[in-house]
Amino acid sequence: MHPTPAAAAVTGEHDDDELAAFGMRARIALHVLQVGFGFVEEDLRIRERSDLVLRMNPVHRSVPILIHRGRPICGSINILQYIDEVWAKRVGTRLLPPDPLKRASARFWADFVDHESKGEEKEMAKAELLDQLRRLEGVLGDRSFFSGDEFGFLDIVLIPFSSMFHGYKQHMWVKRCKERESVRQVLPDEGEMYELHKKWYGIE
Amino acid sequence: MHPTPAAAAVTGEHDDDELAAFGMRARIALHVLQVGFGFVEEDLRIRERSDLVLRMNPVHRSVPILIHRGRPICGSINILQYIDEVWAKRVGTRLLPPDPLKRASARFWADFVDHESKGEEKEMAKAELLDQLRRLEGVLGDRSFFSGDEFGFLDIVLIPFSSMFHGYKQHMWVKRCKERESVRQVLPDEGEMYELHKKWYGIE
Repeated sequence: MHPTPAAAAVTGEHDDDELAAFGMRARIALHVLQVGFGFVEEDLRIRERSDLVLRMNPVHRSVPILIHRGRPICGSINILQYIDEVWAKRVGTRLLPPDPLKRASARFWADFVDHESKGEEKEMAKAELLDQLRRLEGVLGDRSFFSGDEFGFLDIVLIPFSSMFHGYKQHMWVKRCKERESVRQVLPDEGEMYELHKKWYGIE
Repeated sequence: MHPTPAAAAVTGEHDDDELAAFGMRARIALHVLQVGFGFVEEDLRIRERSDLVLRMNPVHRSVPILIHRGRPICGSINILQYIDEVWAKRVGTRLLPPDPLKRASARFWADFVDHESKGEEKEMAKAELLDQLRRLEGVLGDRSFFSGDEFGFLDIVLIPFSSMFHGYKQHMWVKRCKERESVRQVLPDEGEMYELHKKWYGIE
């Protein structure tokens, strides 16, 4: 399936911190569209970024970065859209739906998840997290996935943060996502994930 | 050209405050793609939002909102992409370039402009504004427009904030944008714009 890597994903090591979850998005998307890729782990515990990161993302000096044909694509949402535009046709699976209204909705909720609680205090962020959760549950409704009948863009955006969902180990959407090979290959195993989420959010 | 409005743009009144600039983006894009639209101005000086805004954007209760076939699309960048996906083919003009790498770059810089200085103190924001400006000048380089040879997505994102550009009245990119009918129809006239920008940024 992956004879030669088509791209390289520069992400945080998954036991580092919350930022690593953004890199998981890129890696899941590459697996979904069957794109072979090399994987560079950046140590986020140390303050200095590697030369690769400084060169590829001089503006934000952050991961994840997707490197394709030597050119960087920065930011996890941006990377997902790029992956969709470059590789989706080849395998006949799209991450974003074809309908513009549904695409707009997916982008709206992705933006909601990533930008709502920026720059707020920790306590505020927790209250907002609960509010976010309630709203996201409403978006999911009775559907199998956030993207509808099929696992897609918004599922990829959310699954690395699955512990947001109440009783997430039992949550049907979380279970359905974790049955997928693309997700299993990227997400840490259940016990490890639980410890990570506890660390990231202070949840029990 | 515009026999019946195809959509409605709900935006702030342009003399209100900085938020109105985000609505200008939506309106410029609709003009570029020759989409007829109704225009609802929301008074941003009062604290309460209208019933229309509360109904169409219950999550953020913010403008701009594009209403198409009774359905809302919220957030100016999201709106631009929606407009491009729905109406660009019809007129043979695209807001975002076809090349995925260039699309990723345009989205990256749009995100950079909108999210970089959120949640920071005013003074910090000013220093960052200067840094932003320097970086954006680098992106423009020797090209006519941020989108390349043609006025497009990133130009629309930036032109309502044209006063960021040093000596912006004389700035060649600003001049080129203001020669365009789509921009002229939306942006306040020169004197009015100058007063607005002074108010928004405290510039002289």
